[in-house]
Amino acid sequence: MRVVADINVTPIGAGASLSSHIAACEEVIEEAGLKYRLHAHGTNLEGSWEEVMQVVRRCHDVLHERGAPRVDSTIRIATATDKDQSLEGRIDKVERKIG
Amino acid sequence: MRVVADINVTPIGAGASLSSHIAACEEVIEEAGLKYRLHAHGTNLEGSWEEVMQVVRRCHDVLHERGAPRVDSTIRIATATDKDQSLEGRIDKVERKIG
Amino acid sequence: MRVVADINVTPIGAGASLSSHIAACEEVIEEAGLKYRLHAHGTNLEGSWEEVMQVVRRCHDVLHERGAPRVDSTIRIATATDKDQSLEGRIDKVERKIG
Amino acid sequence: MRVVADINVTPIGAGASLSSHIAACEEVIEEAGLKYRLHAHGTNLEGSWEEVMQVVRRCHDVLHERGAPRVDSTIRIATATDKDQSLEGRIDKVERKIG
Repeated sequence: MRVVADINVTPIGAGASLSSHIAACEEVIEEAGLKYRLHAHGTNLEGSWEEVMQVVRRCHDVLHERGAPRVDSTIRIATATDKDQSLEGRIDKVERKIG
Repeated sequence: MRVVADINVTPIGAGASLSSHIAACEEVIEEAGLKYRLHAHGTNLEGSWEEVMQVVRRCHDVLHERGAPRVDSTIRIATATDKDQSLEGRIDKVERKIG
Repeated sequence: MRVVADINVTPIGAGASLSSHIAACEEVIEEAGLKYRLHAHGTNLEGSWEEVMQVVRRCHDVLHERGAPRVDSTIRIATATDKDQSLEGRIDKVERKIG
Repeated sequence: MRVVADINVTPIGAGASLSSHIAACEEVIEEAGLKYRLHAHGTNLEGSWEEVMQVVRRCHDVLHERGAPRVDSTIRIATATDKDQSLEGRIDKVERKIG
């Protein structure tokens, strides 16, 4: 099952500056070879259910290794049986309808 | 890794009444034997990372089988390396501090 | 417009222990006189749109005053035109349908 | 207080195709004159707390007028007292740190 997901992974107790931790998580996604796009509150991901979940889990491990005692994440997942979905397809479809 | 999660699984294109679909997802959780607590915008779950993710995936399958062409879900996951977490522990800890 | 909301307010850069901060936010809700129920990943709230939003804003202010340089929150809001909604009504409706 | 927010507004009971409804909500944002960027699971917004909340509320109204009996939305809001935040600033800061 192919999914378009959105993930936000937040280290708690690792200071107020999150950007280097988020960059470490982007590198996990890059290494996994998934299509992704960073935005201001998370990262869109396209891949199989297992690939996406594996990446989030690996981000938790990496942030704990970087010193965060707690990691909270929010994952949004969309599945569809009536069509193939893609990260760009979801965006394009809306943009074509903006008047 | 033991996690305390929160899941919200929403069928799209299956009408305006969601309660019977949500109840079908609660039965998936019940069958999986996980500790859970329903609230007004989702369900708290306690289990291993794999158990929680397996339950969410099974909810997507069940809602698609029940006729929803699209299913969106939001999963929140908290992991901690500095203590054991439990669903009730997280709630009790806050309640004891309310003045 | 009456809404059933769910809020999660997370202070960033205020250490790893969040429970006292969350308790301070529960006191804001209590003072506002809204019906609420704490769960393991947030708090369900029932009130008018304005009341709920006012409470979240006040929680941000209080957590900044308590020393958090950054505060992230997630608010879920459900509105309905076909029925009156209540915090308990949403839970009861699902529970009656669990087989 | 300037905020960088992320909103996802989902009409329930208005069929399986959401793109035209989401486009209607983008037009609300456009009319409000806020800086925004659509992604595959929502829209990043930059503005004052009041402006952002007003836009979300107007999206609920517009989707109800378009026939959705229920509308669910998720709003993420980040506030900071230690720096000025911007939509692009949050993205750039992470991108500069990806190795």
